[in-house]
Amino acid sequence: MSDARARGRPRRADAVDRRAAILGVARGEFAAKGFAGVSMRAVARAAGVDASLVSHYFGSKEGLLVATMDLPVDPVAKIAAVVASGPDGLGERLVRTFATSWDPHRDVFSSLVRTSLGSGDGDTPVAQVAREVLGTQLVDVLAGDDRELRAALVASQLIGMATFRYVVRLPAVADASVDDLVRWYAPAVQRLVDS
Amino acid sequence: MSDARARGRPRRADAVDRRAAILGVARGEFAAKGFAGVSMRAVARAAGVDASLVSHYFGSKEGLLVATMDLPVDPVAKIAAVVASGPDGLGERLVRTFATSWDPHRDVFSSLVRTSLGSGDGDTPVAQVAREVLGTQLVDVLAGDDRELRAALVASQLIGMATFRYVVRLPAVADASVDDLVRWYAPAVQRLVDS
Repeated sequence: MSDARARGRPRRADAVDRRAAILGVARGEFAAKGFAGVSMRAVARAAGVDASLVSHYFGSKEGLLVATMDLPVDPVAKIAAVVASGPDGLGERLVRTFATSWDPHRDVFSSLVRTSLGSGDGDTPVAQVAREVLGTQLVDVLAGDDRELRAALVASQLIGMATFRYVVRLPAVADASVDDLVRWYAPAVQRLVDS
Repeated sequence: MSDARARGRPRRADAVDRRAAILGVARGEFAAKGFAGVSMRAVARAAGVDASLVSHYFGSKEGLLVATMDLPVDPVAKIAAVVASGPDGLGERLVRTFATSWDPHRDVFSSLVRTSLGSGDGDTPVAQVAREVLGTQLVDVLAGDDRELRAALVASQLIGMATFRYVVRLPAVADASVDDLVRWYAPAVQRLVDS
């Protein structure tokens, strides 16, 4: 990076600076106003960049939120990929992807949950991600009655599994193979996917 | 109570004192040693009472643990009653009983979860209850393969639902009627009950 700067690459350095500026603004906005209170446009304005640049870097407001958290796993991208193949076998893909993505980062997941739920404020970044990312992304792939409730209950199942596997570390769940989780939990998740 | 004491009823007063003494000892033991490290016998000894009295008052170690927490809902008794009718319809009874029991005590549930998961120590009283009560009581009613894992995943589902309904308060889950929760979530729970 310092070599690149020495050779004079203003564009690359500018891009890094602008991305950092957007993230800095967004982090403060999400903390102050919660997910619903933040707009991509307002973040762009406060960061002194064009709104299209925020979309270019982060795709969506959910993507921007996740980027501010510096997670080892990008839940927006993961869920988007899993959902893209449609409702058939979605339960299996969700359980398998969730477990394989977070198993190497148990401690990170645990501290995210502890930090988020431990505070008195329900509108923490992790709660926002759980609400907005898991909730809204899943809704679109479901058909039939009560799609919002069913999507939220699918998210409840995944968060419950992850809380027992990574945070509480109940041995039966923490030590289970991914295949055994998929074998038993995936049909229970699929039950909510199918209306 | 003061009338009773004035009239001189040493037995009643003794019973209250002994129960309080047992709870005081047990609270300290669970905090220091965790659920597995505590025995009813050792609690009785430290409280200066016969072990049979601990069983008489609290039924089981799980019951003793719950009593130390002074909960508005007794999960041991609730789950025992729900489990007693066997695996048929268990998913529905679990979801309905859990929601109707805790809906009037949302804030208590929320602060229990926050206090428990917010601390750095995974072996908190609430984690112990989740692990021991939900886990072990459910195992006995299940048949077939991987009963421990399935029971723990049922508990994951209930804790996930309760976390979204009472702690994160995702509107889709928090505002759903108990009947709608039962309609959608009960079959997903039952899927894990049936092997």
